[in-house]
Amino acid sequence: MTTTATATKQFMTSDQLLEDWQGHRNLTRRVIESFPEKELFEFSVGGMRPFAKLATELISIAGPALKGIVEGNMEAYSEEAFNPKTKEEILNKWDEETEVINQYFGQITEERFQETFNLFGQYEFPVYQNILYFIDNEIHHRGQGYVYLRALNIEPPFFWERF
Amino acid sequence: MTTTATATKQFMTSDQLLEDWQGHRNLTRRVIESFPEKELFEFSVGGMRPFAKLATELISIAGPALKGIVEGNMEAYSEEAFNPKTKEEILNKWDEETEVINQYFGQITEERFQETFNLFGQYEFPVYQNILYFIDNEIHHRGQGYVYLRALNIEPPFFWERF
Repeated sequence: MTTTATATKQFMTSDQLLEDWQGHRNLTRRVIESFPEKELFEFSVGGMRPFAKLATELISIAGPALKGIVEGNMEAYSEEAFNPKTKEEILNKWDEETEVINQYFGQITEERFQETFNLFGQYEFPVYQNILYFIDNEIHHRGQGYVYLRALNIEPPFFWERF
Repeated sequence: MTTTATATKQFMTSDQLLEDWQGHRNLTRRVIESFPEKELFEFSVGGMRPFAKLATELISIAGPALKGIVEGNMEAYSEEAFNPKTKEEILNKWDEETEVINQYFGQITEERFQETFNLFGQYEFPVYQNILYFIDNEIHHRGQGYVYLRALNIEPPFFWERF
């Protein structure tokens, strides 16, 4: 890392990041919807987790993590609080978390994005890196969901349709 | 989009974005390496493209797109210029593109990231959105590569190891 002017060029604003993230979340929601009820909970490839489990992981990270960042709470990560049995439960929780994300993300200051935080008492990185990780992890698992859908002979939603 | 102060909060600098991207590219390189030679070019799930084809797509986007952005060239996207027959060819080209990305990315100004550009004469979006799309597309396809590896009973690299 240099100390020249280039080091401080802004790539994007926090509003732009949030809009991009919620666009990704809309697409992931459509992927959840694309699965038949049974396959959402049971189907997978190569011994991996079914997409309902992957979606539960995503739901257990984003909102709770942002809340932890804003409140300075380093409580451990847990998927046990949410144990859905139906697609509708997952989609309803997904939509609730959309609001949680908007609420807490907006409270993070520009300075805070650059500060290190020990997320879930385990992941000690600058806040912006933790947030990028949530989004990357979602794209990663959603890409896996695309393979499940293709293996089920179901056409996935277009990758570029976000809103 | 509002005009309040929150709209101009910086999420991350361009150096941080580039470091994150090259970290992703290191991981994708390890995924390419993880495939046996034959399976890299032939194996897939659900009628999708083999990972060599997905890697070729990624190689055909990032460097050429940044070059197009910097030079204002809207020439159409093409995968035809690169038609690898071996894993080594793909890895060598991957490493060449690492330098191309560093070279051109560094020439994009803060103002330019916010300007609209008609990438490949087809994708008219702000430059920062185009760049996010390249990275997201890479994570998306790499996640698919993870499923291929699992289906081949090969342990993929850790998602969080980037350097």
